[in-house]
Amino acid sequence: MSAEVPNPAAVRDPAGAIPLEDLHSSLGHPLAESMNFLNEVAQRYPDAISFAAGRPTEEFFGIDSIHRYLDRFREHLLTVFDCDEARAEREIMQYGRTKGIIHDLIARNLAVDEGITVDPESIVVTVGCQEALFLTLRVLRRTSDDVMLAVSPTYVGAVGAAQLVDMPVLPVAGSPEGIDFDDLTRRLDEVAATGRRVRALYVVADFANPSGVSLGLEARLRLLRLAAEHDFLLLEDNPYGLFTSDGEPGPPTLKALDTERRVVYLGSFSKTALPGARVGYVVADQRVTAADGREELLADQLGRIKSMLTVNTSPLAQAVIGGKLLEHDFSLRAGNVREQRTYRDNLRRMLDGLRDRFPPGRHPEVSWNVPGGGFFLVLTVPFAVDDRVLEHSARAHRVLWTPMHHFYGDGVPVNQIRLSVSHVTPAEIETGLDNLAAFLREYRDH
Amino acid sequence: MSAEVPNPAAVRDPAGAIPLEDLHSSLGHPLAESMNFLNEVAQRYPDAISFAAGRPTEEFFGIDSIHRYLDRFREHLLTVFDCDEARAEREIMQYGRTKGIIHDLIARNLAVDEGITVDPESIVVTVGCQEALFLTLRVLRRTSDDVMLAVSPTYVGAVGAAQLVDMPVLPVAGSPEGIDFDDLTRRLDEVAATGRRVRALYVVADFANPSGVSLGLEARLRLLRLAAEHDFLLLEDNPYGLFTSDGEPGPPTLKALDTERRVVYLGSFSKTALPGARVGYVVADQRVTAADGREELLADQLGRIKSMLTVNTSPLAQAVIGGKLLEHDFSLRAGNVREQRTYRDNLRRMLDGLRDRFPPGRHPEVSWNVPGGGFFLVLTVPFAVDDRVLEHSARAHRVLWTPMHHFYGDGVPVNQIRLSVSHVTPAEIETGLDNLAAFLREYRDH
Repeated sequence: MSAEVPNPAAVRDPAGAIPLEDLHSSLGHPLAESMNFLNEVAQRYPDAISFAAGRPTEEFFGIDSIHRYLDRFREHLLTVFDCDEARAEREIMQYGRTKGIIHDLIARNLAVDEGITVDPESIVVTVGCQEALFLTLRVLRRTSDDVMLAVSPTYVGAVGAAQLVDMPVLPVAGSPEGIDFDDLTRRLDEVAATGRRVRALYVVADFANPSGVSLGLEARLRLLRLAAEHDFLLLEDNPYGLFTSDGEPGPPTLKALDTERRVVYLGSFSKTALPGARVGYVVADQRVTAADGREELLADQLGRIKSMLTVNTSPLAQAVIGGKLLEHDFSLRAGNVREQRTYRDNLRRMLDGLRDRFPPGRHPEVSWNVPGGGFFLVLTVPFAVDDRVLEHSARAHRVLWTPMHHFYGDGVPVNQIRLSVSHVTPAEIETGLDNLAAFLREYRDH
Repeated sequence: MSAEVPNPAAVRDPAGAIPLEDLHSSLGHPLAESMNFLNEVAQRYPDAISFAAGRPTEEFFGIDSIHRYLDRFREHLLTVFDCDEARAEREIMQYGRTKGIIHDLIARNLAVDEGITVDPESIVVTVGCQEALFLTLRVLRRTSDDVMLAVSPTYVGAVGAAQLVDMPVLPVAGSPEGIDFDDLTRRLDEVAATGRRVRALYVVADFANPSGVSLGLEARLRLLRLAAEHDFLLLEDNPYGLFTSDGEPGPPTLKALDTERRVVYLGSFSKTALPGARVGYVVADQRVTAADGREELLADQLGRIKSMLTVNTSPLAQAVIGGKLLEHDFSLRAGNVREQRTYRDNLRRMLDGLRDRFPPGRHPEVSWNVPGGGFFLVLTVPFAVDDRVLEHSARAHRVLWTPMHHFYGDGVPVNQIRLSVSHVTPAEIETGLDNLAAFLREYRDH
């Protein structure tokens, strides 16, 4: 948008600027730079086809739906509040309940779509899943001995949120099955031996970002056992679980299998409803006991932190998400039939297109995994990929993707790139793959 | 709302709950308890007249306005994007720019209403003013030597946000003129002498919460000089500045007087537009220099933190606020003519009502200040007011207000209560004052 306000040339320059080193340490971390770089590259090459964007398809967006959802939720409130119009409007327009106003609708959604049964009081509606992550880590990080584990490669936002509370994130090796349990037990022992404490393990059990990998049922049960044995929480982030390749539900979520309240479940509506609403949630049904014996839910502690962070999640935005939930009888599976087909077809086309361009046996130096759904897959290439390689690909071959080193947190280039299928048309996939193949040929012959 | 999901009785109780003392220290602080208590009292006595609520009037709410603002902003985008409908819808519905999408409209609003001229790039649109506060403190708090000063009594959310980044808040005594400068210089010397560092002073220059007091022009200029001399920032929070008793603009904001970029300006739309949107902003035009000499705006650093906290402020919610700004040619003064009148009339009625019930000279033990606008005034009474006194007032006299000790942060009862005029009708003011007078009589004769 245009900046129509004149620059403040009249402002006299102060004696000194603020040195970056006087500001919070996360600002000097490579992570901040890498996020910046990735955004900038995409902006500098707007005509490049992007296999980098993790945003949902816009195919079915329509501003009419926002008006419709809002009215639908208002009608719902009128029945809840016995046709008291003023009260219904207040609920949407005034300051609201800290833990949210669509917690009961979310509980019904979890029951319908995921077989998860929770008391609505254990749900906190948040400003996207990112705030849910921050709140959980802020509550759990008491001292500098508290650490988080994360299956590596890891979603950048999980590491970023941990940095905001000065909490170290120790990687646990991933594997084609999702997680290397030997490495996990080694890590747990190592942390215990150094007098520190694992408070949580961050994990995306379904179609992880960036790997696309899902955990099998056995691995899920084993994680739950380990969490109980070693007394830590599993932070289960599940933005992509609905988007299975075959349209059938995958294995139960960790939370659905959680008989001992070891799982804090992080939910997002950005992929299944509307990114522009910035509404997510956290299910935290763990009990917390005060010194005087009083007991509350972990969700109540998250709410206290939230009251000092964002006060409450926009009731207006919640109303729009609530309207969508109501319109589809609480099922986002039902509300995402078209989107599911788009992602499934895109993933299929991407996998077919890779096989066409790199036929089996002919290009052993190029390989990729075959996720059972979600937005992402990982391509392994015969050279280390740093950010300059991406920039060359964008400029010379007009195709964008994400170097995997950004998800390992150490900045060391690896032979992998992440490809996203969520925000491209079929034609863009074909052209993008042609461009990608040309780019790979150049580097192979290099 | 009803909880129609069955309680998870099937969940086996885990061996142990989480001890509160293992969670973040802010959760054990009296502040968390006091917020809880104040909310609970209001819920337990819904029929009591509330001089406690700081929320804006709902008199002019209407869900139609939300639909209208949204469409208005969409039309605006169509002109900005050359009638590209898909792009306009994407801007509102998709993930968005970290620093916001209505920054240019906010810059125009600041120019029109406040005479503040800033580059829109120095504005970050936030999830209410509370997130703006948190972001600023998170960026400024580097080490345990960094402290914040706050004019006492202080808005509870400022102390709460500081607690989330483990930053001590040292009080500076307030005065009938707003701030005790002797105490401020004493504090500055004391902090310097102990090797710590004042990063910021939090101040509400116009109709402060809870005191209702405003700073005069001289005091504003003196604060700016002190900030430059002692190298700290002024965090100017200005949610009430528009609501002057005489309808005329007050003295310029600190930011409007800020020639050396010493002021970080915190803005809210919750009182002037719509609390349910949860949209606020921060103006941070300070320069930040990296070790390699690169220079950026403080706003860019806030944006980096925000990307790991809430990703971006709901574009949908921003669109609604943007629509209101457009409808009133960027003037919230123009857009709040009716609200201004309501608050002005309420404040007048409250002051007149107090004088009627406590005529001058007859009740020297009861006094109050006469703010020039805003939502709040402070009543001084002849006894220390703790939370049990409030509870008695609610139960026996059906009138709610806020014990002032909550704003001093130490929990020590003081002889003062805060009265709010923003969320009551004229009839409620009269009845509430009758109830309040009865309550005071009882305590006087007690």
